[in-house]
Amino acid sequence: MQVPLSHVCIHSITTKPWNIEQCVHHYSREGFGGISVWRNTLENRNIQDTGKMIRDHGLEITSLVRGGFFPSVSLEKRQKSIDDNRKAIDEAAALGAPLIVLVCGADPGQSLEMSRGQIKDSIEALIPYALASNVKLAIEPLHPVYAGDRSAINTMKQANDMALDLDSPVVGVAVDVYHVWWDPDLEYEIKRCGNINKLFAYHICDWKTGLSDVLNDRGLMGEGCINIKQITEWVRKTGFSGMEEIEIFSNLYWSMDQNEYLNKIKSSYLNLYK
Amino acid sequence: MQVPLSHVCIHSITTKPWNIEQCVHHYSREGFGGISVWRNTLENRNIQDTGKMIRDHGLEITSLVRGGFFPSVSLEKRQKSIDDNRKAIDEAAALGAPLIVLVCGADPGQSLEMSRGQIKDSIEALIPYALASNVKLAIEPLHPVYAGDRSAINTMKQANDMALDLDSPVVGVAVDVYHVWWDPDLEYEIKRCGNINKLFAYHICDWKTGLSDVLNDRGLMGEGCINIKQITEWVRKTGFSGMEEIEIFSNLYWSMDQNEYLNKIKSSYLNLYK
Repeated sequence: MQVPLSHVCIHSITTKPWNIEQCVHHYSREGFGGISVWRNTLENRNIQDTGKMIRDHGLEITSLVRGGFFPSVSLEKRQKSIDDNRKAIDEAAALGAPLIVLVCGADPGQSLEMSRGQIKDSIEALIPYALASNVKLAIEPLHPVYAGDRSAINTMKQANDMALDLDSPVVGVAVDVYHVWWDPDLEYEIKRCGNINKLFAYHICDWKTGLSDVLNDRGLMGEGCINIKQITEWVRKTGFSGMEEIEIFSNLYWSMDQNEYLNKIKSSYLNLYK
Repeated sequence: MQVPLSHVCIHSITTKPWNIEQCVHHYSREGFGGISVWRNTLENRNIQDTGKMIRDHGLEITSLVRGGFFPSVSLEKRQKSIDDNRKAIDEAAALGAPLIVLVCGADPGQSLEMSRGQIKDSIEALIPYALASNVKLAIEPLHPVYAGDRSAINTMKQANDMALDLDSPVVGVAVDVYHVWWDPDLEYEIKRCGNINKLFAYHICDWKTGLSDVLNDRGLMGEGCINIKQITEWVRKTGFSGMEEIEIFSNLYWSMDQNEYLNKIKSSYLNLYK
């Protein structure tokens, strides 16, 4: 089950205090094979040069993170969001990232049904641009704790259904164990996602009980209660051969020495499948 | 849609700083028709006398809260939990509460599947005692944010399926908008719950975005993003004619004057269906 570190990717947000050059230098030195680049790290950078710098360090660029945030009660804001997602597609193409992760968004000022409809319409509007740019879009279902303001897509079933309905080779699903581990239909929906060829990305971290912060208290693999091994097995069984992406938001870990933290990440990953 | 206050009940935990006598006095004075009694308020009380005191104030006792917390990696703890739930059934019978709300529990040290199996086995073990005592048990699906440590039953579908499988007139489901509002299958599962005669209780409050605390930052009705009116309509359509139960956990509101807070509760309820 264990894949070599060369098949493991880290999201730049995981070591948030580091700039992109530091992320690339240290991830590569420690033997990780890929990076998912968060857009904030590209500010004031030439994006093509940054892509080259990453590849020159031997890292694969797994994805650009993140697009989405589509729904709004304001038509103007919805249009702005589509424009920003086109910009993200341009950035991904310039960087050489094959995929953008979509955090779909939600507006607490309207019903979830309304937000869900707007998400679908917005992704549909982006498909031609994504196709032309050869950039894939991965709908990431977010944990229901974020249904109020971050995503109205909260289960694998919803993401699979939407990807199927949109029926484009550039639209698929990103599975993050943090968001979906609780779902009683998870095994079935991962299998289904594979059957419809929509499993585009796989993210890992852990869920600590007694969260101190709803957003930024995620755990290192093994530190919480997610059955990551089991979920990885379901994902691998579909034939998914992509990177295992480590993505951790943590005020706790961001406040420590990031080299020590990277060592913890590495050992927690290596212990995971033992 | 609006039901009179005489058909609205408050959970004693909502005004946590008050003892049971204060809750009863003030809820009754403000015209509310019922109370759901949390077990902590019965400590050092004669339970039968307390039940009489509540009824003498013209309040209906809607439920005793709460039983459950069944799963554990320890067999001894599972047995202790069954014993404690039998005690809760005794208390409900003595108090004159027709129903116990079950927060089913979860143990982060084992898989959700394991916890779910133990929950089912434990409820099954309690059925004869509940039948003999004429006390109903309502499985309350809890929001997936609590899947790690408070309940492995996280959707209406799971609660309905389990209530159906257990196939006893004393086992049903408690619907709390806070826990289920995000669920894309909610309308269908509420209808189904009604069709199988398992809709035993209905709780309301609101979900504020940007939670400051995962447990104790619930909102007054109208303060958040839950479409309570819509959900109430689905519940009423099933033929459910029970109390609407207000249950709010809030460090914010517990720290204010509880009479002022009760006025807020009353006006937020009265504004809800306008």
